Amino acid sequence: MPPLQDQLDIVIPTIRNLDFLEMWRPFFQPYHLIIVQDGDPTKKINVPEGFDYELYNRNDIERILGDKAWCISFKDSACRCFGFMVSKKKYIFTIDDDCFVAKNPTGEDINVLEQHIKNLLTPSTPYFFNTLYDPYREGADFVRGYPFSLREGVVTAVSHGLWLNIPDYDAPTQMVKPRERNTRFVDAVMTVPKGTLYPMCGMNLAFERDLIGPAMYFGLMGEGQPIGRYDDMWAGWCTKVICDHLGVGCKTGLPYLWHSKASNPFVNLKKEYKGIFWQEEIIPFFQAITLSKENTTAEACYLELAEKVRKGLGPIDPYFVKLADGMLAWIACWQMMNKKE
Amino acid sequence: MPPLQDQLDIVIPTIRNLDFLEMWRPFFQPYHLIIVQDGDPTKKINVPEGFDYELYNRNDIERILGDKAWCISFKDSACRCFGFMVSKKKYIFTIDDDCFVAKNPTGEDINVLEQHIKNLLTPSTPYFFNTLYDPYREGADFVRGYPFSLREGVVTAVSHGLWLNIPDYDAPTQMVKPRERNTRFVDAVMTVPKGTLYPMCGMNLAFERDLIGPAMYFGLMGEGQPIGRYDDMWAGWCTKVICDHLGVGCKTGLPYLWHSKASNPFVNLKKEYKGIFWQEEIIPFFQAITLSKENTTAEACYLELAEKVRKGLGPIDPYFVKLADGMLAWIACWQMMNKKE
Repeated sequence: MPPLQDQLDIVIPTIRNLDFLEMWRPFFQPYHLIIVQDGDPTKKINVPEGFDYELYNRNDIERILGDKAWCISFKDSACRCFGFMVSKKKYIFTIDDDCFVAKNPTGEDINVLEQHIKNLLTPSTPYFFNTLYDPYREGADFVRGYPFSLREGVVTAVSHGLWLNIPDYDAPTQMVKPRERNTRFVDAVMTVPKGTLYPMCGMNLAFERDLIGPAMYFGLMGEGQPIGRYDDMWAGWCTKVICDHLGVGCKTGLPYLWHSKASNPFVNLKKEYKGIFWQEEIIPFFQAITLSKENTTAEACYLELAEKVRKGLGPIDPYFVKLADGMLAWIACWQMMNKKE
Repeated sequence: MPPLQDQLDIVIPTIRNLDFLEMWRPFFQPYHLIIVQDGDPTKKINVPEGFDYELYNRNDIERILGDKAWCISFKDSACRCFGFMVSKKKYIFTIDDDCFVAKNPTGEDINVLEQHIKNLLTPSTPYFFNTLYDPYREGADFVRGYPFSLREGVVTAVSHGLWLNIPDYDAPTQMVKPRERNTRFVDAVMTVPKGTLYPMCGMNLAFERDLIGPAMYFGLMGEGQPIGRYDDMWAGWCTKVICDHLGVGCKTGLPYLWHSKASNPFVNLKKEYKGIFWQEEIIPFFQAITLSKENTTAEACYLELAEKVRKGLGPIDPYFVKLADGMLAWIACWQMMNKKE
């Protein structure tokens, strides 16, 4: 697969760990980085020599988005979605700063970008399940009984990668299983079927910005908000229903990276606990959504979705009314930053 | 996992290869075998010493089912479903006679029954996708964002295992890729989501007979029928829509077995070619099916489905009217053989 330097940006929320970029240097140096610095804008992030990057802190976000800057979360890694908006590339890869290069079972470093690019450049198969997993992979194909009319597949919009070592658990599971580590390397990529939702994690995620970027809003988290750690989940639910509507695919599986450390489960519980209740209503809401046939772009779908969120989730908590406003503000900012020539 | 000898029968269509049972002796000897001998009933199958088995040939099927015996296929491995009907056990495992013991990546023999039993005795999760695969497996769990209300899962009805070496390809794919071998051991079990169909292969299949057995009819194939090699696909479509309706699960993935030889692609093409056309209409038909809420057993659902097949697929070809009759005859036979005390 070509490295796609000219077509993919890497978006990273605040880098707290300077080893991070050194570790990734062989893989990331050919690409352009967009670093969205969270929290105190006066703190300086020292990016090592040799990287091509742009860095935005809170002051930049305020300056660029003006009175709509509130739609970008503060003191939360959800701020990363600002990077999705300012990129000019076709594809985005985003990663957390506590994630390192993992090894495959034969001991080689996994080239996470190469696998995401493979996932994005080969089709998805959301309409029928292939029991031998990704049919476009070398050594695999569609099995007997797979309808031929569906073998062209559809365009892939999202590639969701996984994590070895520390699994992405919620606070209650972290507390119950503090020592659980993910050591199982599952050598598979698969399409999440149409009509099925999945918990999309933002730690190791790539997507086609041109196609689904306007729906990749990480919501309102962090300071002043009643929940945290649902930023990527929110984006996952929204993008999945929109991908299903647009007839494009979301894949999950390879590539793995090495998630080095678990966040504090007590802090996480505080951030999550309302989300844990709310998701019991939010998920049926997303499962039941149908979008209007007239809306054929992620942008148009997202505007429609915002109004459905206001009406359908507003009764749960006023937060969702604010979130619906945030969704509209996000699209307004997206349009401002991505003017069509 | 307990060996479950008292609760599981192994159903095998004609054994053409006597090495087959010797190879499986360490694993199968504790279980009761039901061999359904296909083709010429005067041929004698020599079952090696030490196996506990019952053997049925065509004469037995005719004698037992009388004027409804026509619903069991002749000269086709689809006849195996007769074994599902005569079993008195809760679970069934069925396997083809060209399938042998596979090895896992560390070189150990895979205990295929142990894994199927694990799959069947742990719940399924058809309502939401878990990105770390089977959440009930050791070392795994539900990831962040998985609704807690869905973590109990539902009863598992079907466990669909896979194949190393010769993949289960249709004739066109066999012809295009004569040398393709499946060498990828994917260490995963997953639930096929609700509302998603999958191509269920009968080579390596286990299920809860008590729960879904009446829907595990392998249709009308072989002599006198216009198609072959769609027996398991038919059963897969029917069981999946009924499992979805009943709120029980179908899993796919582990265990692997070693599929030793590809069947002749030219013969296969002759058997398959009508199915290849027809499945383009059959699959949308099954995707659109809704069953009546009043039907809460596989038996009742299957009777309803038979009438839908007659009406919905009959216009494609008179074969489907006959198949609908076959479905009704199958249920009549099932009821005769499985009288409730």
